[in-house]
Amino acid sequence: MTQAAVHPPQSAVDAAVDLALAEDLLPLGDLSAALVDPLVIASLVIRSREDGVLAGRRCAEAAFARASAALEVHFHLDDGDAVSADTVVATIRGPLAAILPVERTALNFLSHLSGIARSTAKYVAAARKVNESTRILDTRKTLPGLRALQKAAVRAGGGTNHRANLSDAVMLKDNHLGALSITAAVTEAKHRWPGRMVEVECDRLEQAIEAVDAGATAVLLDNMDVKAVTEAVKAIRQRPWGSSVLIEVSGRVSLERVGEYAKAGVDLISVGALTHSVRVHDFGLDFEIDGANARPVGD
Amino acid sequence: MTQAAVHPPQSAVDAAVDLALAEDLLPLGDLSAALVDPLVIASLVIRSREDGVLAGRRCAEAAFARASAALEVHFHLDDGDAVSADTVVATIRGPLAAILPVERTALNFLSHLSGIARSTAKYVAAARKVNESTRILDTRKTLPGLRALQKAAVRAGGGTNHRANLSDAVMLKDNHLGALSITAAVTEAKHRWPGRMVEVECDRLEQAIEAVDAGATAVLLDNMDVKAVTEAVKAIRQRPWGSSVLIEVSGRVSLERVGEYAKAGVDLISVGALTHSVRVHDFGLDFEIDGANARPVGD
Amino acid sequence: MTQAAVHPPQSAVDAAVDLALAEDLLPLGDLSAALVDPLVIASLVIRSREDGVLAGRRCAEAAFARASAALEVHFHLDDGDAVSADTVVATIRGPLAAILPVERTALNFLSHLSGIARSTAKYVAAARKVNESTRILDTRKTLPGLRALQKAAVRAGGGTNHRANLSDAVMLKDNHLGALSITAAVTEAKHRWPGRMVEVECDRLEQAIEAVDAGATAVLLDNMDVKAVTEAVKAIRQRPWGSSVLIEVSGRVSLERVGEYAKAGVDLISVGALTHSVRVHDFGLDFEIDGANARPVGD
Amino acid sequence: MTQAAVHPPQSAVDAAVDLALAEDLLPLGDLSAALVDPLVIASLVIRSREDGVLAGRRCAEAAFARASAALEVHFHLDDGDAVSADTVVATIRGPLAAILPVERTALNFLSHLSGIARSTAKYVAAARKVNESTRILDTRKTLPGLRALQKAAVRAGGGTNHRANLSDAVMLKDNHLGALSITAAVTEAKHRWPGRMVEVECDRLEQAIEAVDAGATAVLLDNMDVKAVTEAVKAIRQRPWGSSVLIEVSGRVSLERVGEYAKAGVDLISVGALTHSVRVHDFGLDFEIDGANARPVGD
Amino acid sequence: MTQAAVHPPQSAVDAAVDLALAEDLLPLGDLSAALVDPLVIASLVIRSREDGVLAGRRCAEAAFARASAALEVHFHLDDGDAVSADTVVATIRGPLAAILPVERTALNFLSHLSGIARSTAKYVAAARKVNESTRILDTRKTLPGLRALQKAAVRAGGGTNHRANLSDAVMLKDNHLGALSITAAVTEAKHRWPGRMVEVECDRLEQAIEAVDAGATAVLLDNMDVKAVTEAVKAIRQRPWGSSVLIEVSGRVSLERVGEYAKAGVDLISVGALTHSVRVHDFGLDFEIDGANARPVGD
Amino acid sequence: MTQAAVHPPQSAVDAAVDLALAEDLLPLGDLSAALVDPLVIASLVIRSREDGVLAGRRCAEAAFARASAALEVHFHLDDGDAVSADTVVATIRGPLAAILPVERTALNFLSHLSGIARSTAKYVAAARKVNESTRILDTRKTLPGLRALQKAAVRAGGGTNHRANLSDAVMLKDNHLGALSITAAVTEAKHRWPGRMVEVECDRLEQAIEAVDAGATAVLLDNMDVKAVTEAVKAIRQRPWGSSVLIEVSGRVSLERVGEYAKAGVDLISVGALTHSVRVHDFGLDFEIDGANARPVGD
Repeated sequence: MTQAAVHPPQSAVDAAVDLALAEDLLPLGDLSAALVDPLVIASLVIRSREDGVLAGRRCAEAAFARASAALEVHFHLDDGDAVSADTVVATIRGPLAAILPVERTALNFLSHLSGIARSTAKYVAAARKVNESTRILDTRKTLPGLRALQKAAVRAGGGTNHRANLSDAVMLKDNHLGALSITAAVTEAKHRWPGRMVEVECDRLEQAIEAVDAGATAVLLDNMDVKAVTEAVKAIRQRPWGSSVLIEVSGRVSLERVGEYAKAGVDLISVGALTHSVRVHDFGLDFEIDGANARPVGD
Repeated sequence: MTQAAVHPPQSAVDAAVDLALAEDLLPLGDLSAALVDPLVIASLVIRSREDGVLAGRRCAEAAFARASAALEVHFHLDDGDAVSADTVVATIRGPLAAILPVERTALNFLSHLSGIARSTAKYVAAARKVNESTRILDTRKTLPGLRALQKAAVRAGGGTNHRANLSDAVMLKDNHLGALSITAAVTEAKHRWPGRMVEVECDRLEQAIEAVDAGATAVLLDNMDVKAVTEAVKAIRQRPWGSSVLIEVSGRVSLERVGEYAKAGVDLISVGALTHSVRVHDFGLDFEIDGANARPVGD
Repeated sequence: MTQAAVHPPQSAVDAAVDLALAEDLLPLGDLSAALVDPLVIASLVIRSREDGVLAGRRCAEAAFARASAALEVHFHLDDGDAVSADTVVATIRGPLAAILPVERTALNFLSHLSGIARSTAKYVAAARKVNESTRILDTRKTLPGLRALQKAAVRAGGGTNHRANLSDAVMLKDNHLGALSITAAVTEAKHRWPGRMVEVECDRLEQAIEAVDAGATAVLLDNMDVKAVTEAVKAIRQRPWGSSVLIEVSGRVSLERVGEYAKAGVDLISVGALTHSVRVHDFGLDFEIDGANARPVGD
Repeated sequence: MTQAAVHPPQSAVDAAVDLALAEDLLPLGDLSAALVDPLVIASLVIRSREDGVLAGRRCAEAAFARASAALEVHFHLDDGDAVSADTVVATIRGPLAAILPVERTALNFLSHLSGIARSTAKYVAAARKVNESTRILDTRKTLPGLRALQKAAVRAGGGTNHRANLSDAVMLKDNHLGALSITAAVTEAKHRWPGRMVEVECDRLEQAIEAVDAGATAVLLDNMDVKAVTEAVKAIRQRPWGSSVLIEVSGRVSLERVGEYAKAGVDLISVGALTHSVRVHDFGLDFEIDGANARPVGD
Repeated sequence: MTQAAVHPPQSAVDAAVDLALAEDLLPLGDLSAALVDPLVIASLVIRSREDGVLAGRRCAEAAFARASAALEVHFHLDDGDAVSADTVVATIRGPLAAILPVERTALNFLSHLSGIARSTAKYVAAARKVNESTRILDTRKTLPGLRALQKAAVRAGGGTNHRANLSDAVMLKDNHLGALSITAAVTEAKHRWPGRMVEVECDRLEQAIEAVDAGATAVLLDNMDVKAVTEAVKAIRQRPWGSSVLIEVSGRVSLERVGEYAKAGVDLISVGALTHSVRVHDFGLDFEIDGANARPVGD
Repeated sequence: MTQAAVHPPQSAVDAAVDLALAEDLLPLGDLSAALVDPLVIASLVIRSREDGVLAGRRCAEAAFARASAALEVHFHLDDGDAVSADTVVATIRGPLAAILPVERTALNFLSHLSGIARSTAKYVAAARKVNESTRILDTRKTLPGLRALQKAAVRAGGGTNHRANLSDAVMLKDNHLGALSITAAVTEAKHRWPGRMVEVECDRLEQAIEAVDAGATAVLLDNMDVKAVTEAVKAIRQRPWGSSVLIEVSGRVSLERVGEYAKAGVDLISVGALTHSVRVHDFGLDFEIDGANARPVGD
């Protein structure tokens, strides 16, 4: 996996960081940092306090870069790298009065996005232990305005991106079909959008069989139990296109049960919680003031 | 509490909804909804699937309003109202092809913000059971770009907003003080920013006493155990200004232990997890197509 | 084809119209229209002056809507509808002083986007005459900032959208492959981006065969002459996956030769000129001032 | 002509490039380039494939600059310089994985804007051959959002900018005049907007004479044939202000007939097609991978 | 003068009002208004407290419109109308809790822009008393981001807009000329920018004469005393083009001396202070709560 | 006072400068500067022409930085520094053609913001002469879009910022109170917004006494004469909390009378005119062209 693959587009980084700094600093700036002697130089060490995977480096770098050209910012790890308790992630050195106004913003990005990466990595490991070819997918259940960053964090955690938005793939549900049969709908969708993924959400095996035979790229087995999924996988693989169709399961698959679904032979397991219910990754900040002793700082 | 008090500023709502819809629909629009017969009329019922508190109504309304002027949108509850499993929160009626492109965006807002409100309400209840006057505070550990919405959701849950950003209050930590004593720093901060909150983060009781005597508005007892906090509260209340100073505790106070801190007599307990580690509130969507039977829909 | 399918997302419409009106009216407004008696009421008829296909209606409507709530705007046709010389496309009625500042902007959208639709329709007709299943594709050779609108206009003309951007499909060229073989690259791309189109640009038949065998969704035969394409199609169709792989040709296919390529049995013909070299569709504006005679107006 | 005169304002360049890159790269980035080994270094040569005039350099530079600080970008020519088949316009060197995500965007700007410059230069040459003092003007028939860039490209081609928007000059048409006579309207316009161009669009000679006598800065002879224009020029030049008034013709003046109008002695010939119906200038891209042979690349 | 002539472009109004409301309400909204009973209905009367001219109506209307659709907003006067002490300008009625968050923003626009209109009207009256044809001009010395609004306010006060920006007219100063003579520079400028104003800033009469003879549209007599200006006007008017050239004076012309310059026969007097040094117009707000007595409110 | 304390947040600077340059340069750029030989190098000296205090340095620097990387920009003073007639504030050296398009924008910022600083400094000096502890406050009567910059300029002048917006403090007026007593309203406000300033606007002494006893952070004595204020201060100071409550006066306090109010012992005097009615600070620009003599330049 190249580094480009785990970073979000820079324009998404810049937009999010600008927004975050504006909401923390406007209109009067950092009242407290303005009390600090501008000549005081400090080093800030960002340290992981738990096991996980780094994500959000570009956002943190952008936040420090906007603070002052006088800051030296060194990240010792990149997105996708494993961290554990006490791993030093980054060191920032420069005027304390320039670091203070942006450190919380930088940390908010790092801890949220690394939280996604850590959680994704756990799902990926759980699936892979059982079935090397099963991949963990994210969903469109992302936090408003943060989709590009959250989807990059999923990649950093070893996960795989499902469709990014309503514009890049076709997903057919009962409501979409209306009077059309699955066969007719898949045919129409493939005609209009040649080459794009056409996936059909299925509650029952017969629907999945019809979708596969109609040439769907993928079928989504929604809210089926492991037994039903296992049978469906077998039945689907026996169809003429069955070996190439992608089989996805979704529906609150917990970390505990992800292995069971992987064992059933599905290609893809999508997990909304990766992005909609994120526990932060815990990072600590240690400031060392020149000529003073180190001490930890929180908010 | 008036309704105005639990809603975010409309400009924050509009900006977030525009961003969220753009990231879900650009550049080609909803490929799947474009397959739907534009004459099909549907009703969408949004239903809570668990106990909690509603938040995010204005965002959901804005998303549906942008979809089509032809949609009738009725919210049966407002932000701050309690919901339980099966409570119908809202009903939307109009062309199915207009509802589908925005329902996920509307739900992403509702479920994240109601998740914050639910969690806040639990902390508030736990504190109040023990001490009527202890309030639960949020922090600046918010998700980038979502601070105004998240802080409004905290209010919807009965919580109280700490400073909104670095610009509206002074918070003094060791790093800020440098060569200055707490007394000198508080005096300077009060002089520069008359009337604004000047809070001092303290690791030890002596610091807190000095801050109170210097006229700090509030002291933050950081990462102290319940016993130390109990003693500190007693000592502080005996100072000349001790009855009016606000005493805050912070440092990963869990829901289980919030009562103990409240019992210690603190005024404020700040909880970063309210906004940095949010589990979504679970809502279900039921579509009823005119002339067809209702069925649940997910993504 | 539903109407939703031929319109661009509304947020793309709004952004483009706001930009266009700002660049025509800031900072002093319409100096000339300010000379017009505000009580004069006029009707403006937009009339096609040539054969073609309408596109851009939503943009024109948005421009008039921003001018004044007092304007009555009626479009008699929608995007995708055929027009010919003298077809009345729309009628706008209201204060002349409100119509004048936006009519050029509305027309700039209509004439550019309908130009795309007209040209697309010609290619589509030429291909379809020979081969019902060959589709005409656009490319990423679009005008900066106008991609969503241009791609919708291609759909209005009966064309088909290729990938919308670098983010929604994989296109492998020699440069991307580097040390990897086509087989290895296609395998890796399909693994990382399950379900998404993976297309391989090929200069020679052997490459195309390798790509098809590796499971590529599509092969792009670039700059091959009709004879070479005809042979390639035959060879590809005989491979195990040959019936389902999409075969695309590109490379300055002229309107005159599009039939020959369609006859060769390709699925897709992509034409950069549809969006990069657009001749406007010619519309005329007839103003009729209340109590005065109609007369044509240009700029 | 100074270089400043042929470049658009930098804020217009930045806004357009940001928009173009966002629409090509959001939300997931360049899926294909992410497969490329980040250590591969390449040189990209941009070469003209036809005769013409360069425009758009600043946009292309901005696109490459946003890609990576590691790219070395050298333009060998500037806007306004002549190019012919095989002229090397620019050389870019750096990580291939950084060049690929922006090369199409850079080229979209260069080819559209140089297309305008080439076409303008042809009109200018055709007019100048006959009449040194006749200038070729653009119009407000520009593509939405691209006016500043398109008008700069016209200047690069040796053309002259007409009014930039409705806010910087007065253009009186029949509709504007209403009950006012031409004389009264010109007088009023000159009074309100002292020093600004006041031009009157005329269908008949009498109108032009009245406009000139009233003190109009310019008269626009709209859709008159060459004979009528020749006579009008003679008649106008004999008026007291006739030598200083600007005489413009418009109305689909083709490249073939531009000389005839120039010969008639008009000062200005405005041509909407310069910006509304642009054929791209053809540029080729040659990639040379370090340690590999050069080969051409398209899209 | 039509109403359109005194209003700024709506996009300038909307942008400024959005900015102003965001800076007053983000992130937590109006803390104080949230205490108000949402059922209380109030009427707000905006009353002038001094003589002057109204400007800024569209901005105030936009502010109230964004507050709530439930507000009834009636302006009894429009921009350009005279007001005096006790003139009722507008009445707003609706929920008090909706009025309070925007009334200061609305008033900030009205009082600043009406301040410009009042001051402009005084200069215009002083000049007109002496010389009907002398007009008062604004300059580019405007407040950042407010140019379109400030220039519209100058029009509301009866003043005349000079060039709006560096892009719509040519102004030649010594620095621009460099090695070129005035004659050469004017000739070049007129050639490049046919029809646009070409003005030459002159310190000495000889320069002005050369500029007029070269065909400048206007000459700016900068920082000359009344006597020198009087002589210059005489000398210029005797030149062949002297009757049509515009003669402008500038250089801190006070209200007291504006009549003397008008008497000297100049066409235009530009006054930077109109927009750079504005004293607000004084408006009062009277709230009448339903069922309560009226009382004045300030901030 | 640290430098950070007198500068606005950089994002406010950038946004304002981008807006200001766009409104001065779009769409065609600086027509006049484009006539200047690009090889001419010039030095521009910005010199104060009157006594006062510098503010706006960061805005001016940002404007020059956007003009060209080739400019060397040296400010010899920082915001908050005293200037007098002939003080050289800054020197800019580089291509004249790059300086000219931005010098007016830079100066517009400097002269407006330094005007605020100068005026503030006069009020501060007048108060301080009489009472060391009385501070001069700004208000929310700021110019739309410029609040962050104007409030920073007040700090540069030695003034003190009142609440920045409706979101960061509570101000109770009669209208807010409605049926609530002052005591009830203050209690509620303090409960909801712990630690934030709760100020009560009072017309009569009894109100002020009630507010102080209820625990208000501050009382605003509005439009009271000096005698009434003097008595009120005495009465308030005798209350239990009277020594710590902040006493503010407002209501068109002139520079002449500010000393009298300070003598009365108030803590804070707020002056709307500091930001709503600003007279610019007068700066002069001297250009020195390489190889030519210096001469002053205006607009």
